Amino acid sequence: MKKKISKAVMMRLPRYYRYLSEMDTTERETVSSHQLSVAMGFTASQIRQDLNNFGDFGVQGLGYNIEYLREQIAKALGMDRTNNMVLVGYGNVGNAIINYPGFANKGFRFKAIFDIDFSKIGKDIYGIPIYHVEKLNDYVERNNINIIVLTVPKTVVKDVVKNLKIKRKIGIWNFASIDLKLKDNYVVENVHLSDSLMRLSYRLWGKNGK
Amino acid sequence: MKKKISKAVMMRLPRYYRYLSEMDTTERETVSSHQLSVAMGFTASQIRQDLNNFGDFGVQGLGYNIEYLREQIAKALGMDRTNNMVLVGYGNVGNAIINYPGFANKGFRFKAIFDIDFSKIGKDIYGIPIYHVEKLNDYVERNNINIIVLTVPKTVVKDVVKNLKIKRKIGIWNFASIDLKLKDNYVVENVHLSDSLMRLSYRLWGKNGK
Repeated sequence: MKKKISKAVMMRLPRYYRYLSEMDTTERETVSSHQLSVAMGFTASQIRQDLNNFGDFGVQGLGYNIEYLREQIAKALGMDRTNNMVLVGYGNVGNAIINYPGFANKGFRFKAIFDIDFSKIGKDIYGIPIYHVEKLNDYVERNNINIIVLTVPKTVVKDVVKNLKIKRKIGIWNFASIDLKLKDNYVVENVHLSDSLMRLSYRLWGKNGK
Repeated sequence: MKKKISKAVMMRLPRYYRYLSEMDTTERETVSSHQLSVAMGFTASQIRQDLNNFGDFGVQGLGYNIEYLREQIAKALGMDRTNNMVLVGYGNVGNAIINYPGFANKGFRFKAIFDIDFSKIGKDIYGIPIYHVEKLNDYVERNNINIIVLTVPKTVVKDVVKNLKIKRKIGIWNFASIDLKLKDNYVVENVHLSDSLMRLSYRLWGKNGK
C-alpha cells in the first residue's frame, strides 16, 4: 500500500468491495473509473483519488484490473483471512444473521451459537451447534474466534459483556442497540437499525430534509 | 430551528435521540453538555455546537431540558408524525424486522406484510396481515403508507421495485444489499449489514487499522 488510508476512504472501501465482487470477470477483466462512477454514484475523480491509495496500477485508458483491485481492498480491510465468529442470542435477529447470505463468501464463518434457552441448547442450525452461554469464554479461547456477534435483547446485553473474559484483541458486532463500554481489546461495531430508519425519516420529512 | 442543519450534524441526530430517549426524566429534567459528552463519547464542545442548531435553550450551568431537546430533535428528524410502513418479503430478515423492538415507540408502525408464498398469505403476524405482493401498490395508495421495507432476497428485489407504481414521495428501506436505482420520488435508505462487518474486520486486522 502506498500510504496510510484515511478514515473517510476506509468507510467507502466496503462499498467498492461489494461492487467489485458483483462484477462478472468472465466477461471483462478491467473496469474504468468512469464505469465505477456510473455504477456507484461517486465522481470518477473521487474514485481515482480513493483507489490511488492502492498504488498506480490503474493504467490510463485501460482501467483497473477487477480481481487485483478487489484483492488489494480485501487486504486493506483485513479480509485476507478467515474470521471465525460465534453468535450469542438465537432469537429473531440471531436467526436472520445466521441465515444472511454473503458473509461466508467474504471469509466470515459462524462456528457456534450460544443461548440460555434449554429448548435450543444441544440442537444445531445448519450444522452450527448451540451451546449454553456459560461456555462462551472457553469456546472463544479454544477455537480461535475473532468476532462475537451479540443478538441478545438490550435488557441482557450488559450481563453478557460483563461476563466476557477475553484478554486478546477481539471484535464485538453488537445488534443490541445500546452503545457498550468495554476494555480496549474489545473492538466494538454497533448496528443501530433504528438510526437508519430515523435517517430515512429525516430525508422524507425532516427540516431541510432530503 | 435557528438555521439549516448540516448533513454531518444530521447524521449524529439519531444518536442524540437515542441517548435522550433512554434518560430517566423522572429523576432529572436537564442534562449538561458535559454529561452528554461522558455518555456519548463526543466532546462537550462538539455537543454544544451541534445542539446550538436547536436554539439557545441550553442555559449555562443548567443544561438542556431533556424532554424539550428530544422533541426538537424528533421534529428535525421528521418524527413528529406517524410513519405507516409495509414490509415486503416475510423471510428471516423480515421476521427479525417485524419483531424488532423500538420502532413503534418512535412512531414507525407496520400495517401490512407482502409475500408471494401462498402458505403465508392470508395469515397475520401479531395482527399484521400478510397479502400477496400484487396488492402492494393498491394497498400503499389506499392506506397512507410512507415507508416500504424491502426484505426480499437480492435476486428478486429488482423485480419488486420494477413493479412499484407510486407517484408521490415515499421511503424505501432496503435490506436487499444491492443499491437500487429508482425515480426521485423514492427516497432509498440502504442497510448493508456486510459493510458493517467489513468495517469491523478493518478495525481488527486492516492496514493502519484500529
